[in-house]
Amino acid sequence: MKLASLKGPARDGTLVLVSHDLTRAAAVPAIAPTMQNALENWDAIQRKLAGVQESLAHGNERDAFDFQAALEKGEVASPLPRAYEWLDGSAYLSHVERVRRARNDHVPESFYRDPLMYQGGAGDMMGPRDPIRALSEDWGIDLEGEVVAITGDVPMGATPAQAAGAIRLLTLVNDVSFRRLIPAELAKGFGFVNGKGANALAPVAVTPDELGNAWDGGKIHLRLVCHVNGKWFGSPNAGVGATFDLYQLVAHAAKTRELRAGTLVGTGTISNKDADSGFACIMERRLVEQVENGEAKTPFLSFGDTVRIEMLDRHGATIFGAIEQRVEKYAG
Amino acid sequence: MKLASLKGPARDGTLVLVSHDLTRAAAVPAIAPTMQNALENWDAIQRKLAGVQESLAHGNERDAFDFQAALEKGEVASPLPRAYEWLDGSAYLSHVERVRRARNDHVPESFYRDPLMYQGGAGDMMGPRDPIRALSEDWGIDLEGEVVAITGDVPMGATPAQAAGAIRLLTLVNDVSFRRLIPAELAKGFGFVNGKGANALAPVAVTPDELGNAWDGGKIHLRLVCHVNGKWFGSPNAGVGATFDLYQLVAHAAKTRELRAGTLVGTGTISNKDADSGFACIMERRLVEQVENGEAKTPFLSFGDTVRIEMLDRHGATIFGAIEQRVEKYAG
Repeated sequence: MKLASLKGPARDGTLVLVSHDLTRAAAVPAIAPTMQNALENWDAIQRKLAGVQESLAHGNERDAFDFQAALEKGEVASPLPRAYEWLDGSAYLSHVERVRRARNDHVPESFYRDPLMYQGGAGDMMGPRDPIRALSEDWGIDLEGEVVAITGDVPMGATPAQAAGAIRLLTLVNDVSFRRLIPAELAKGFGFVNGKGANALAPVAVTPDELGNAWDGGKIHLRLVCHVNGKWFGSPNAGVGATFDLYQLVAHAAKTRELRAGTLVGTGTISNKDADSGFACIMERRLVEQVENGEAKTPFLSFGDTVRIEMLDRHGATIFGAIEQRVEKYAG
Repeated sequence: MKLASLKGPARDGTLVLVSHDLTRAAAVPAIAPTMQNALENWDAIQRKLAGVQESLAHGNERDAFDFQAALEKGEVASPLPRAYEWLDGSAYLSHVERVRRARNDHVPESFYRDPLMYQGGAGDMMGPRDPIRALSEDWGIDLEGEVVAITGDVPMGATPAQAAGAIRLLTLVNDVSFRRLIPAELAKGFGFVNGKGANALAPVAVTPDELGNAWDGGKIHLRLVCHVNGKWFGSPNAGVGATFDLYQLVAHAAKTRELRAGTLVGTGTISNKDADSGFACIMERRLVEQVENGEAKTPFLSFGDTVRIEMLDRHGATIFGAIEQRVEKYAG
């Protein structure tokens, strides 16, 4: 199944089922008014949702509308317009290795056994075409392209196998980071508050079965294609170089507390050792430039710049739709 | 006004108005079904809520029920049974100073100008009489008694004065901490995930005017009374020793992003320099014992132990009701 949310009428938006090719969609008010509601009642309603998906595939949904037109008009929200928990791992250690190497440091041995993860804010998710807003370009505005799992309820102490069974949906996230604010904030020792902005999810979240055998072992074995200002920036393979899979990351997040339906667990920025794959964040390219050429040349994002993040299946078709955002000065 | 939530029928609970003396309460389904809903529509409904509060005060609410009985039966949820954002400051630097002194370290000068704050999880808040659940006593289970503000919408870059106007409600929180998991987790550099458990709020949240002149300058100038296993543990004054007030803490949290209605911003563990006031967390008492006697004697919480956190007004009456929790082994 493919699911999305339209903006309004209230803050949690309106759940819609989306055709496999993302052309058409239909609201399902009689089944679940919102994505959050659907996630809380998943077992009771997933068969009904599948019925609507089937109808859409056969062109039988009378109230279906043009999903691409809604997307272009900015009417599509993040599949979860707001979420209670956003726990983001750092599964791709080549990203961490590059950060450390640039400051002549090494990655602690424990990082290969115990996931690095931070708790972020998700109370105000941007829609996939909403602007990234900041008060100053001096913050060092950066994208971070990642895969994210949306869970059902997860018991405390869940094993990776139990966590696997609790993953309801997968999508992409742009985990917006303010690079120049991060060093001083992390030095305080309590993680990120000001260093991370609001995030955007891809237009559509999908059940794992939509990915066929590209979803294997808690990883999506496909490339994440990132563009900055219309130019190819990177397409690292999300199935390559992940020290931890999403089953392990969800289990880590649930180690000392229950996670409730609608929790977002991210992989961290997708990164491959092979620099020819490019990058899913600007910082990493800057770190490679610094090591190779003695200085970082690629600038962080300025007002007016655009980013695009998507993932294509083996036939080149978009799976989740694209996150396409323009950077703007916040004006309230 | 004094507001609370009953558990059910859905995960956001049922909003109730509570009489000033916490004896009686009434649901207000025609005004706002849930606390989250009330916070999102605050300006439109606060007058109507005040009308119900007035009726309760005069014994005129026909459908009022015994709030204390509901509390004892475990039917009262956290005022916000789940929240999108939980941003917790460390405003009482005597707490931080004790931590640092115990490891022969000092508090960086910047900590007196730039608030220390972490983002925690609030997607699953415990009710004020629900058990604190953990898989192991070895985690070093501890209470942390704090004051928390519940905000309306806050724009990015809000000044402390703007933040002041966005504080809708105040209450208390038990920010449960797993002390023995924290050092290794903080050493990874990304803040808390496993080191903090689910939190509980006090039974009732109140509008700032309920506090009279005890609410001044973004601080509550009253003592937070903490008991462990029925014995007095501390009653530090929340108006003393706070380097940052709640206006500054909310402004800090909103520095690079909008906060949305229902955001929780905490003061951090209440702590006074005067150790005779006792403590609002066990760790701090242990640190003082370690410095004074060479070893920490007070144990962290074990299964079966109880904690109680409340705040009394100048006449000795409870303002928010008490958080009263027993520690239990998590059993799913």
